[in-house]
Amino acid sequence: MSQAADFAETAGKPIECKAAIAWEAKKPLEVRNVTVAPPGPGEVRVKIIATALCHTDAYTLDGLDPEGLFPCILGHEAAGIVESVGEGVASVKPGDHVIPCYQAYCGECKFCKHPESNLCVSVRAFTGKGVMKSDGKPRFTVDGKPLFHFMGTSTFSEYTVVHEQSVAKIDPSAPLDKVCLLGCGVSTGWGAVVNTAKVKPGSSVAVFGLGAVGLAVIEAAKRAGASRIIAVDINPAKFAAAKEFGATECVNPKDYDKPVQQVIVEMTEWGCDYTFECIGNTAVMRAALECAHRGWGTSVIIGVAASGQEISTRPFQLVTGRRWMGTAFGGYKSRIQVPDLVTEYMEGKTLLDKYITHNLKFDQINEAFELLHAGECLRCVLTF
Amino acid sequence: MSQAADFAETAGKPIECKAAIAWEAKKPLEVRNVTVAPPGPGEVRVKIIATALCHTDAYTLDGLDPEGLFPCILGHEAAGIVESVGEGVASVKPGDHVIPCYQAYCGECKFCKHPESNLCVSVRAFTGKGVMKSDGKPRFTVDGKPLFHFMGTSTFSEYTVVHEQSVAKIDPSAPLDKVCLLGCGVSTGWGAVVNTAKVKPGSSVAVFGLGAVGLAVIEAAKRAGASRIIAVDINPAKFAAAKEFGATECVNPKDYDKPVQQVIVEMTEWGCDYTFECIGNTAVMRAALECAHRGWGTSVIIGVAASGQEISTRPFQLVTGRRWMGTAFGGYKSRIQVPDLVTEYMEGKTLLDKYITHNLKFDQINEAFELLHAGECLRCVLTF
Repeated sequence: MSQAADFAETAGKPIECKAAIAWEAKKPLEVRNVTVAPPGPGEVRVKIIATALCHTDAYTLDGLDPEGLFPCILGHEAAGIVESVGEGVASVKPGDHVIPCYQAYCGECKFCKHPESNLCVSVRAFTGKGVMKSDGKPRFTVDGKPLFHFMGTSTFSEYTVVHEQSVAKIDPSAPLDKVCLLGCGVSTGWGAVVNTAKVKPGSSVAVFGLGAVGLAVIEAAKRAGASRIIAVDINPAKFAAAKEFGATECVNPKDYDKPVQQVIVEMTEWGCDYTFECIGNTAVMRAALECAHRGWGTSVIIGVAASGQEISTRPFQLVTGRRWMGTAFGGYKSRIQVPDLVTEYMEGKTLLDKYITHNLKFDQINEAFELLHAGECLRCVLTF
Repeated sequence: MSQAADFAETAGKPIECKAAIAWEAKKPLEVRNVTVAPPGPGEVRVKIIATALCHTDAYTLDGLDPEGLFPCILGHEAAGIVESVGEGVASVKPGDHVIPCYQAYCGECKFCKHPESNLCVSVRAFTGKGVMKSDGKPRFTVDGKPLFHFMGTSTFSEYTVVHEQSVAKIDPSAPLDKVCLLGCGVSTGWGAVVNTAKVKPGSSVAVFGLGAVGLAVIEAAKRAGASRIIAVDINPAKFAAAKEFGATECVNPKDYDKPVQQVIVEMTEWGCDYTFECIGNTAVMRAALECAHRGWGTSVIIGVAASGQEISTRPFQLVTGRRWMGTAFGGYKSRIQVPDLVTEYMEGKTLLDKYITHNLKFDQINEAFELLHAGECLRCVLTF
């Protein structure tokens, strides 16, 4: 309870703490102290204990997101402890362990009420602009100048402020430096299999891209009972991990002088029941669709493509029974389902630890980005 | 039984009869006598009583199908009576009333056995080449020269030969000059709603293209309980029929200076639960996808695009929950489900008669193509 006692001292006051500032695109982050204002109405201030890096952070930092706002505090895959709550917040209290969720869940909008969607719109207009809903302003400042929020989470800071709709309260016994991964990539891969594609036992699956998301797809497909899981990557160094997670075969498109979709259709006779694109490459999205099984194959886009890029195919591919879908946060309704994912991990049902290839201190965040770019890490977890 | 007695006289012999020969692309058909050989093993010779015209016939005759084979006998939307059967045929006998089905059903291939596909492959390799499976040859000749089959049906002939897998035996009391429509367009529209999209009561629907297929989508969507049915066409002359079939609103894209998908998203706030492309225009396929509801909207491609054309969109459209699908023959397993469609019509549950705007004699087939091109008819039924 000493933690809670500490929190009582800071509640209602600005907090000076360490954060990584993204001043502009294509520049390293600057780790320095920032000021985090108290949470406004409907907001929650969270002490971040562990944060991982995800490719979307790198994507924005690389200036590839035309809607990226600078200067800002990046980060969206993390876990922490509620430090204080703003007016009207009843669902969490100081001391609660939480995972910030970039995909909010209000439970009341059209999307939250629909059984097949998790695309809550309650705070979307504000998180998209890097500000909070109650007053249209950010809670971060440095030398009196505002810093934008990112994805409604901004976890590259020892303290952050999020909307109440964007925190999932989890089992307090869960290790935060592990379950932080449930904030994005791993959940997205699992959910694409379970919620979006609904992979059935005995089916065949192809997974394009063997980063953390692709491996999470493989893990979940194996759990769903897929009998054939084909892992595809142009870097054969990733095949060992793919097999460890459950891949039954690995394909390197560079080993063939024909399109990879043709290779997979020939391997499987008619294609795979389910295919997943876990890269964000529109040419691969097309390949994944075109090696989905004639008649009923489903292809799910998980990767985020660069701005302005488009997918295309011959309509014949769809008329002959293929289905093209996509997923965001794996279709999980964040606040109500992330706690269950934590529970399943605690019960030993999922492989979370295996995704963490590197652990660094928060000060080493720029090194972590270099590891991510070099393709040498699945997930690097930073702790304060 | 006099008909059956007549059939007994011709069984096993070539039949001389009237047919419409497509000698080459972009030329009128020539109505003249051809010779129809007896059915080979596994084949059925059918006396065609009524045949309608469908846009796919016009598409091939216009030379737009690069795989179109000439000279040939077109036609694939018809009904008739079995005249004789070849060796080993047990499922139909002379005198049975049948609808030829361009999408075969063998009941034994991987696709027939799958609950979600109707894309039987039993005879596909042969019907695609305009010949019969038993000997790789066509059954039509004129002056001793072979004429290719078309879509495995070739109903623009008083007698035709089809594979046993390609005839659906129907209620003999059904009027053949009405139920011939169940051989293609109308069934396709109904099935896209019922089998492919699985439209739910209370949902919203947008239908692009108000020919017979589009109207069939509207009819089926209304029966499925859709509460809002938006009919879209650039020809407002088609709106009266659309409303008669069940459209609740009509939209002419030419009335707006913004893309039609934006118009429909604004009309519905987030788009329609289901959208259907019934034209074959890839730009419209994109529009239909992009006005499907964020989070769960399904867009179904029904129209057949010109060869080489591609569909495209931003992957973001799928990642935010839209699903892109297609359908062939509405997903109906032809031999086993077309008889049910006939029964439903006989029970007064469907509007078949309303699609027939013109009746002509078979000799007037070139006039019928002109009506089709002029957009003046939904369906023109030809009788011998």
